Amino acid sequence: MAKAAETRAEGAAGNGGSRAIDFRTEPARYRHWKLAADGEVATLTMDVDEKGGLLGGYELKLNSYDLGVDIELADGIERLRFEHPEVKVVIMRSGKERVFCAGANIRMLASATHAHKVNFCKFTNETRNGIEDASANSDQKYLCVVNGTAAGGGYELALACDHIMLVDDGSASVSLPELPLLAVLPGTGGLTRVTDKRKVRRDRADVFCTTEEGVKGKRAVDWRLVDEVIPRSKLDETVAERAKNIASSVKNKPALTKGVTLTPLERKRSADSNEYRYVSVEFTRDTRLATITMRGPDGAPPSSVDDLVAQGAAFWPLQLARELDDAILDIRLNELEIATIVFKSLGDPERVLGYDAFLDASATHWLAREIRLKWKRVLKRVDVTSRSLVTLIEPGSCFAGTLAELIFAADRSYMLIGQQQGDNRAPATILLGESNFSGDLAMSNGISRLATRFLGEPEALKKAKAAVGETIDAEQADELGLVTAALDDIDWEDEVRLLLEERASFSPDGLTGMEANLRFAGPETMETKIFARLTAWQNWIFQRPNAVGPEGALTRYGSGQKPNFDLKRV
Amino acid sequence: MAKAAETRAEGAAGNGGSRAIDFRTEPARYRHWKLAADGEVATLTMDVDEKGGLLGGYELKLNSYDLGVDIELADGIERLRFEHPEVKVVIMRSGKERVFCAGANIRMLASATHAHKVNFCKFTNETRNGIEDASANSDQKYLCVVNGTAAGGGYELALACDHIMLVDDGSASVSLPELPLLAVLPGTGGLTRVTDKRKVRRDRADVFCTTEEGVKGKRAVDWRLVDEVIPRSKLDETVAERAKNIASSVKNKPALTKGVTLTPLERKRSADSNEYRYVSVEFTRDTRLATITMRGPDGAPPSSVDDLVAQGAAFWPLQLARELDDAILDIRLNELEIATIVFKSLGDPERVLGYDAFLDASATHWLAREIRLKWKRVLKRVDVTSRSLVTLIEPGSCFAGTLAELIFAADRSYMLIGQQQGDNRAPATILLGESNFSGDLAMSNGISRLATRFLGEPEALKKAKAAVGETIDAEQADELGLVTAALDDIDWEDEVRLLLEERASFSPDGLTGMEANLRFAGPETMETKIFARLTAWQNWIFQRPNAVGPEGALTRYGSGQKPNFDLKRV
Repeated sequence: MAKAAETRAEGAAGNGGSRAIDFRTEPARYRHWKLAADGEVATLTMDVDEKGGLLGGYELKLNSYDLGVDIELADGIERLRFEHPEVKVVIMRSGKERVFCAGANIRMLASATHAHKVNFCKFTNETRNGIEDASANSDQKYLCVVNGTAAGGGYELALACDHIMLVDDGSASVSLPELPLLAVLPGTGGLTRVTDKRKVRRDRADVFCTTEEGVKGKRAVDWRLVDEVIPRSKLDETVAERAKNIASSVKNKPALTKGVTLTPLERKRSADSNEYRYVSVEFTRDTRLATITMRGPDGAPPSSVDDLVAQGAAFWPLQLARELDDAILDIRLNELEIATIVFKSLGDPERVLGYDAFLDASATHWLAREIRLKWKRVLKRVDVTSRSLVTLIEPGSCFAGTLAELIFAADRSYMLIGQQQGDNRAPATILLGESNFSGDLAMSNGISRLATRFLGEPEALKKAKAAVGETIDAEQADELGLVTAALDDIDWEDEVRLLLEERASFSPDGLTGMEANLRFAGPETMETKIFARLTAWQNWIFQRPNAVGPEGALTRYGSGQKPNFDLKRV
Repeated sequence: MAKAAETRAEGAAGNGGSRAIDFRTEPARYRHWKLAADGEVATLTMDVDEKGGLLGGYELKLNSYDLGVDIELADGIERLRFEHPEVKVVIMRSGKERVFCAGANIRMLASATHAHKVNFCKFTNETRNGIEDASANSDQKYLCVVNGTAAGGGYELALACDHIMLVDDGSASVSLPELPLLAVLPGTGGLTRVTDKRKVRRDRADVFCTTEEGVKGKRAVDWRLVDEVIPRSKLDETVAERAKNIASSVKNKPALTKGVTLTPLERKRSADSNEYRYVSVEFTRDTRLATITMRGPDGAPPSSVDDLVAQGAAFWPLQLARELDDAILDIRLNELEIATIVFKSLGDPERVLGYDAFLDASATHWLAREIRLKWKRVLKRVDVTSRSLVTLIEPGSCFAGTLAELIFAADRSYMLIGQQQGDNRAPATILLGESNFSGDLAMSNGISRLATRFLGEPEALKKAKAAVGETIDAEQADELGLVTAALDDIDWEDEVRLLLEERASFSPDGLTGMEANLRFAGPETMETKIFARLTAWQNWIFQRPNAVGPEGALTRYGSGQKPNFDLKRV
């Protein structure tokens, strides 16, 4: 037990700090952001507390950020969707004078472990994708007010917004100085959003990304880097006007008086487990496993959308989604040596499908839609998690509808045929629902997990669709191609053990690279492009001596010494 | 001079050998392949000479390959298109008993520098893309006969073919053992072709890529890894039958008696230059520049396609393409410290456009089509070259039509306004042609360079198209968005110098990552996916201690010692 506790502390220490990182927060506890909602318009104000660094050893000057700052932003964006559905425009602005945001804190980046850097970038990418998701799917448009310097990650934050306003005062600018200053990339979507969202001409993008001081004024507009420049004297009035115009352009959004409160997630933590209301995480450290068990609903779905709203955050699908999200993030950042996540479930599959059916039937209601969208985001978070994913479908499990997505998100899924000795529960079944096909839970490649799975076998996709609502046993699931293998009681334990041991024996990096390729067949989108092309190159650079070596640019930044580069092009 | 010669030797030494790598070869000099063409069917037989390693220090056992082996394959594929246009089916097979190909040589990989590994993989990827290009665009279908083990790169070679036949003898298998064996990825398109070309179900792909011994027999067919399995006793007859069937399915290919010979490329090499007939490369080592000057045609285009065939390899566009290709490859592999390639041209732009018009008018003729396709491949090679690309458009230049693509392939292009002091040549002009818009020279993203350039400004694309055939001066080119900047004589020299100095001052790795992102806006294809998602992850892994460190899997392979992994997942 002492050993296990020690290992857990070590895991957290891998992040450069001694405490485990907690992703749970709420506005009252924010140190770096302020969230204010006023009718149709809300404001997210970034005012970073210099002394509030998450890992220690650096000051968050000039609205620079670390993971702790971004955890608050991610929370704010989520709350706006659930707690303030009446909001149509979110103004993203700075609480500092003449500085919008200086980007990711350089000293933090220079001192963090490789794993922390990579996981930090992944989370911040997910947060920015969340802004675009809120705009595209929840009609919460983001208006970014760049009142001064927006450098690196600061400008990348602006890029995630729908409309970028830049103060025209001869000094306020947007810039991506990562390459000239630090020898790394604007890796939080910056390069991709410049070329694929803002569609900046590539030679201008090249000039922009190699110009430390960035671009300001009219040129920033001409080059499509911002949408407009505004004299400082007219800033506040223009922002108010734009917000009003954007709000009035958002149609079809019912006038609402209130949302539902995202109550604090309760989590009981021990050295080898995380215990939530509907989720249990068990760490088996000698085999480097985290087993996530999701529990089904206790009762039937609500009888009406009023009931749904009354249940609010306690509504089973919403609470489960939030707990699963937290569990995944905890493993990513705090449990670096876990090789494999095993997904299990416990409950009544028919009841799970009943909740899905309720959400389908309530699809025009804002809260039902938000809950589906939340699941979509959580499942995408699972898809880009750099751990081997294995789903085990056993008697007593409830992999139905939305939960069945965990079968298709996994690298492997095994299903037990019949019963296990000493367990008189009925054999496991899978139930497919409309949500497995509709695209409501699409992967970041824009198509459903089953469509991705059956890219080469369109007939198999049709057959699976024909089985919606039917009870599918292990042999049928195997026949339909829904699982990797159906195994009987005699083989089950050995096969599962062998798989998990094998997984733990492989190179962790090799697995990360392999899984990042095999999971994303088919179309590519701006989102997959960010997680693949941009992130993979950034990760490479984050290993290169020219950036992170003793004489590298990131290491030497601020030391007064110039970096010393290996001049070979690779 | 002595210093320069030394630097050039060093460049080559970076590849692990002491001689510069030469990409020029011809069938009579092959050590590892045999090319035999017989009517509609040709055979490429891989029979690697164990003692014929390019870099030394390893033996090419079991038909394993290194860059030298792949240079011959690439040459064979090119010659089939030009010298044997009558060929409709190419049988790819092994000259060894019970082994098809063991993939890239492991000891070569373990001992090669990072830069060589990366460039080796890039070239082998281009070769395999060339097979698919020949199939798609020249109706030369590839039939792969896997007579035994096809492991790693061996199976990746098969994956590039149209039809894979596997001997069913209880031992012949296909496998991608890179991850379990070496902790690296099947990086020569393997992962991407498994998911996106063969469309193997992802969990089966996961099993396949983690199973060292691979898959054989019926399962290989069921899993879509091969197209059919054939008893050994019936192999030769079935291959002949398939070849005949495929050949008869290729319609619209005129019966031809002969192609044109790709005569040896003459190149005069000195310490600081490479001199070809139409291409000069000048190395300026103190500023880490390679200046490639392309010379326009001496006279008018041929008067007929018969004339074209008579000119053959001496036809200006074909010879220039081959020379440019060789020049680029030489820089990539032998000149690692060159930061920037500067493209210049000399000649009459109207004449260049005349050749383009001739190719357009002859588009249905096989040789005219092959020459366009060759240019398409050469320009794609430029696009994925990890050097900063700058095009300078000066008086006397001939950036017209096909050659104008170098303006749009460049990271920056500068154009001189008016004349230069002491030079009475007319001011520089650009001429656009149909080929700049038609997609005949499309990038690997499937659209033209100008369509990519103007993704955000469709009106600009229309305006440029309206200017086809018109003489465009520097100010007009700037106005049309065709160049990064138009500069007058007063600024020219300083601006160019500053750009090139700045480029040389940046981190070579940072530039590689940035350029790999900024050059490929817009759609992604299987090809871009291989060069981005797969390659970037592989490059990352090629830096990770778990693969290449002293206790890494690649280093320890064959030593009898197990690798020792850092167990943290990143």
